Amino acid sequence: MDPDFSRLDDLLAEEDADGYLVDDTSHNSTQKYLSGFDAHDPFVTLYTPERTVLLVSALEYGRAKKQSRADEVRRSADYDYRELRAEYGPAEAKARVHAAFLADYDVSSVLTPERFPLGPADGLRERDVTVTPEESDRVTEIRATKTEEERRHVRDAQAANEEAMRAAEDLLVAAEVDDGVLVYEGEPLTSERVKEEIEVTLLRHGCGLDDTIVACGADAADPHDQGSGPLRADEAIIVDIFPRSKTTGYHADMTRTFVKGAPSDEIREWFDLTHEALDAALDALEPGVTGEEVHDVVCDIYEAAGHDTLRANPTAETGFIHSTGHGVGLDVHELPRIAPGGEELKPGHVVTVEPGLYDPSVGGVRIEDIVVVTEDGYENLTSYPVKLVV
Amino acid sequence: MDPDFSRLDDLLAEEDADGYLVDDTSHNSTQKYLSGFDAHDPFVTLYTPERTVLLVSALEYGRAKKQSRADEVRRSADYDYRELRAEYGPAEAKARVHAAFLADYDVSSVLTPERFPLGPADGLRERDVTVTPEESDRVTEIRATKTEEERRHVRDAQAANEEAMRAAEDLLVAAEVDDGVLVYEGEPLTSERVKEEIEVTLLRHGCGLDDTIVACGADAADPHDQGSGPLRADEAIIVDIFPRSKTTGYHADMTRTFVKGAPSDEIREWFDLTHEALDAALDALEPGVTGEEVHDVVCDIYEAAGHDTLRANPTAETGFIHSTGHGVGLDVHELPRIAPGGEELKPGHVVTVEPGLYDPSVGGVRIEDIVVVTEDGYENLTSYPVKLVV
Repeated sequence: MDPDFSRLDDLLAEEDADGYLVDDTSHNSTQKYLSGFDAHDPFVTLYTPERTVLLVSALEYGRAKKQSRADEVRRSADYDYRELRAEYGPAEAKARVHAAFLADYDVSSVLTPERFPLGPADGLRERDVTVTPEESDRVTEIRATKTEEERRHVRDAQAANEEAMRAAEDLLVAAEVDDGVLVYEGEPLTSERVKEEIEVTLLRHGCGLDDTIVACGADAADPHDQGSGPLRADEAIIVDIFPRSKTTGYHADMTRTFVKGAPSDEIREWFDLTHEALDAALDALEPGVTGEEVHDVVCDIYEAAGHDTLRANPTAETGFIHSTGHGVGLDVHELPRIAPGGEELKPGHVVTVEPGLYDPSVGGVRIEDIVVVTEDGYENLTSYPVKLVV
Repeated sequence: MDPDFSRLDDLLAEEDADGYLVDDTSHNSTQKYLSGFDAHDPFVTLYTPERTVLLVSALEYGRAKKQSRADEVRRSADYDYRELRAEYGPAEAKARVHAAFLADYDVSSVLTPERFPLGPADGLRERDVTVTPEESDRVTEIRATKTEEERRHVRDAQAANEEAMRAAEDLLVAAEVDDGVLVYEGEPLTSERVKEEIEVTLLRHGCGLDDTIVACGADAADPHDQGSGPLRADEAIIVDIFPRSKTTGYHADMTRTFVKGAPSDEIREWFDLTHEALDAALDALEPGVTGEEVHDVVCDIYEAAGHDTLRANPTAETGFIHSTGHGVGLDVHELPRIAPGGEELKPGHVVTVEPGLYDPSVGGVRIEDIVVVTEDGYENLTSYPVKLVV
């Protein structure tokens, strides 16, 4: 099932543009989504309401014809790139090739992503193509609604994620405590060691990632601190894992908070309150509700219990100091936002719900599930138990 | 030791521009190199002959002050980004902030990388800043010459790489042969299994990578095929590993070719000839020699032995059908090129030398070392033995 590009057609009609043009590698998720193709080097995708066409190097031609979702694939050699480069150098050769390619499809005006490359844009403008970066980020909006197949990809990544969380929890369980510090196989158990186990487990399940958070105590009180050094008993350890499937490119995302030993009463209260906020936010999730409304549910609960939030106090440095969640797909952070200004939820949106509390003098607590919005509510893609003490 | 940016100063003078502007994440190696800063979200680096200044979000401010090589760090909040966004939306707010930031440093004309983002460029142009994408790729040229520290980073990545190659070779050694197929722990030993072992070993040594090549038989005859499925005895298996250090961002790169069992006479001849080509290319490496001249040494040897090359036959599909090597640094492929048109070699260049022969009816053979050009020759950063039969 192809994504529904009718809103992109609408945008092209509104802006009186012939097509939508992307020039990037498939590391750009909009490029990957529109083209359905993976390549490390930049290539060009032209979307028009009639067809999607790729322009690739000879090297990628066979693979693009087989793997991409394009209706047609052209080669730069079809437009004499090599000869033009010998005569004019690479930048002008590329501009001439792109202009000839667009002319072949009667395209004289294009919308592009905001971060379309300047050199190629100037090259087209010099050849009288109208090139307009568009601010609405329409393809990103379209990407928010996941097809059945995309949901399956997220589910698969989440299955690997749960194996990795299990490996992390198992390490904490197996650790002993010596003078307040976790010890495993005779060495202090560090954040780095747990992250390595998580990453190796993900690799064994076909996923990769560059970052993981395993943050203990005061580290965990900064939601952007990835954690380092020995893990300590009786303190909250936040484990936040957001892997990407190496085969599909789709992400998952989940956070759990663990205490090895005996949590303080405060940590325990925070954990229970955060669990309550998670459940309440999930209860509120359904089509037609906005991301902002779901975020408000979480803020209501925290504020009622006397905690600071960014909603009540935009400069708060403790309490609930981030948003409630975000879409997940080819990017680990994408639309919709479960946050102030967050968009109306629709069936097929895949989002995280991740309330949390932070204070350097206490530590940090966060619980995060990943769910898909359905016709009448949501389905939780997370089956990992929520449990504080290990 | 800072890199030598004098050639960037020269370019700015030639083009009569006040500064060089980058707006990207640190996944862009030019951004990472100029800023000395790592961030997942786009930020701005302004280079002028007097100073390097970063413009970052409040979230990154403290880290940027500590970690970057910038002389000054500014925050978008210093230019009222939040208020402007509320009034004008994100694109115009960003344009106003960037224009005010440049004005603060008396910069009214900038050169940018060819692929600078179009929206921000248009925003600056509308505010009378001259924005010119530059084709010479000057920062990439500067990046080719590695400081002592950068060489150390490559060396460290290569040490991890040799551990990974060892793990791969150990699996091949430990495998048994059943009906022509390699078997390990009761299962066919696949390309995927060996790649997993390589990646896990790299992770355990602080490196990551997205791709590895473990290609056997006809797969190996396509230099871009990453290999899949069961590995077979008596056939050449190409193992090409190019990891990236997770801490420094620098790469290494090495290829070995193995045969489990008995290679054909042809594979053995190819291997010996390729080893000879490697040694001859290394002998030719010294400052003042061009990458093209080193490439020619390899072509001479292969052509004298009756093999086709792209030099002799640009449409060759068998024989030596790629270039001899490339620079390695923050990017796994960067300047200089050891290829037709390849640049003059200079002390501090880190390059691969990787001759190879390919034919689907025989398989593929490639041997690749990574070396640094010194004042009077080169130093080989590779210590992994070159040996065909395992």
